[in-house]
Amino acid sequence: MRYIDAFNHFFPKRYYDALLETPTGAKDLGKRVRGIPALFDLDLRIRLVDSFDDYAQVLSHGLPPMERLWGPNKSPEMAKIANDGLAEIVAKFPRHFVGWSALLPLNAPQAAAKEAERALGNGANAVQLPTNANGVPLDEPQFLPIFEVIAKSGKPILLHPARTRDMPDYPTERYSKYEICSVLGWPYETGVTLARLIFSGIMDRFPDLKVIAHHLGGVVPYLEGRVGHSFDQLGVRTSDEDYGTILKSLRKRPLDYFKDFYGDTAVEGARAATVCGIDFFGADHVVFASDCPFDKEKGPGYIRDTMQVLDSLALSNAEREKICFRNAQRLFGLTA
Amino acid sequence: MRYIDAFNHFFPKRYYDALLETPTGAKDLGKRVRGIPALFDLDLRIRLVDSFDDYAQVLSHGLPPMERLWGPNKSPEMAKIANDGLAEIVAKFPRHFVGWSALLPLNAPQAAAKEAERALGNGANAVQLPTNANGVPLDEPQFLPIFEVIAKSGKPILLHPARTRDMPDYPTERYSKYEICSVLGWPYETGVTLARLIFSGIMDRFPDLKVIAHHLGGVVPYLEGRVGHSFDQLGVRTSDEDYGTILKSLRKRPLDYFKDFYGDTAVEGARAATVCGIDFFGADHVVFASDCPFDKEKGPGYIRDTMQVLDSLALSNAEREKICFRNAQRLFGLTA
Repeated sequence: MRYIDAFNHFFPKRYYDALLETPTGAKDLGKRVRGIPALFDLDLRIRLVDSFDDYAQVLSHGLPPMERLWGPNKSPEMAKIANDGLAEIVAKFPRHFVGWSALLPLNAPQAAAKEAERALGNGANAVQLPTNANGVPLDEPQFLPIFEVIAKSGKPILLHPARTRDMPDYPTERYSKYEICSVLGWPYETGVTLARLIFSGIMDRFPDLKVIAHHLGGVVPYLEGRVGHSFDQLGVRTSDEDYGTILKSLRKRPLDYFKDFYGDTAVEGARAATVCGIDFFGADHVVFASDCPFDKEKGPGYIRDTMQVLDSLALSNAEREKICFRNAQRLFGLTA
Repeated sequence: MRYIDAFNHFFPKRYYDALLETPTGAKDLGKRVRGIPALFDLDLRIRLVDSFDDYAQVLSHGLPPMERLWGPNKSPEMAKIANDGLAEIVAKFPRHFVGWSALLPLNAPQAAAKEAERALGNGANAVQLPTNANGVPLDEPQFLPIFEVIAKSGKPILLHPARTRDMPDYPTERYSKYEICSVLGWPYETGVTLARLIFSGIMDRFPDLKVIAHHLGGVVPYLEGRVGHSFDQLGVRTSDEDYGTILKSLRKRPLDYFKDFYGDTAVEGARAATVCGIDFFGADHVVFASDCPFDKEKGPGYIRDTMQVLDSLALSNAEREKICFRNAQRLFGLTA
């Protein structure tokens, strides 16, 4: 079976070097990043890809979101360096890396819209967005031009959770303790952002916008009952806001918007969750992804485990091909 | 098939009347509560139970947690009224209501431990705890005596999510908007609390403590991969806290603690989520529950839908009986 890995992480060299020089990069991030060579060592990464049959990656930058690392004066320049870095790798090794996603300097929204346009014009197959920009929700008006550019391109958004504990208004101790914020908080954060994209009207404004939500939709598929029935009753729990009006203004049932999003299979090899997520989004809206190289083995673990899970599922051959590579080809506009 | 509904909500009359007189009860809560008669009208509730074959309920109080409604001078008295109210209903209608859970005045921790002891001595089949006490995590030392009393009784905790937006330190706008806090935030909050019960050492201190997490474990079963692999790597993302030591001090792998909790089937009739949750906890650790009467039909909806989902699952007869009533009989100490 052909596999195109839609969401995994790599730092191109110039961006990686610059990142380690930031205060954040010199602390926690540097410690973590340096411990995972396949995240920045291109030769190693190529060997890793080669170790799987008929397997290729669409590269995305690693975390954290760049607006945490540089101020708005510097971030647009760094985004360009980051994006040109991935474009170069993909041009040089097209068999291993069949595409790439751009990142944007969200703390400089106007520059971000321009960079989105430039990167997509320069061959980017997707745009990676964090679920919040330093704590600012993506449905704030300053980000609208970005969505407009992406929607116009026809390319998808790769929605990646952003560390909630870095948000200035977040109750740090309560939610960051024991790393709960990344383990459980990230998938929650993904659900929060999908909900806000719907109820803010962004999905009605750009009905063809494709959003691929990392980790198989975060918490959404498991909460299908609540997302369906509870959002149908939006407003009954609140008296100080007129949510009933929002509900009426939507073109579809809230649940249907959630089902129109896409998910990837990056659930660290959890089989029952994979079944639940595919049931929710349907085989046309799920793409194979590994989150490589964040497994304990620092590279091959989640790729192998996720392939094994897909192998074990009762899918038709057509469904399996869609999930493993055809949906990715279609969404990212790939020929290989 | 016999069904014992392990988690559903009802307000006994004296408690209901008192609740509507509080400032919170007079506002949002009152509006919502009055709109769902099966939440407080006993005759209606009995007819509702009668409308299903061989079906009985273990009653739990409705939300919100009482420490939001009364200060610590008043809450112990109100807990007593609430608990005696349910005890009385169960004594009077033992065929419809085979058991009940006690609530506790968590803003008066010493009184709460005493009330737990009194209520359990008075026949309570479980203790309902919110996932936080007005924003204070349950693993704070002042709550230890409560866990001690419950553990000693052998009866389970029914863990109910508490509204995150009411926590004093919560970033209200960001998370409460569009009721995201209750729809997605509650199950997340459940996961947060389960994690804290583990990593704080409470589950090691009381290894026989049984915790039934509402809504089939919140977000945990769908996040099995993260809960497994990411918590195994606790500490790698953090440099300012020594989480590696916590990990070593635990008696089991973090994932195994999560799997030792119990879940209920109250997922608003979502089939794929039910399958995923039963896969995670196993048939010995799942109890039938409906969250009645919070469906759109204000009573029968989730009971009927959840029964239909269970009917449709490929379970052995032994597994089905455990989930539908035998686990509840065992956990709550029921004879009927």
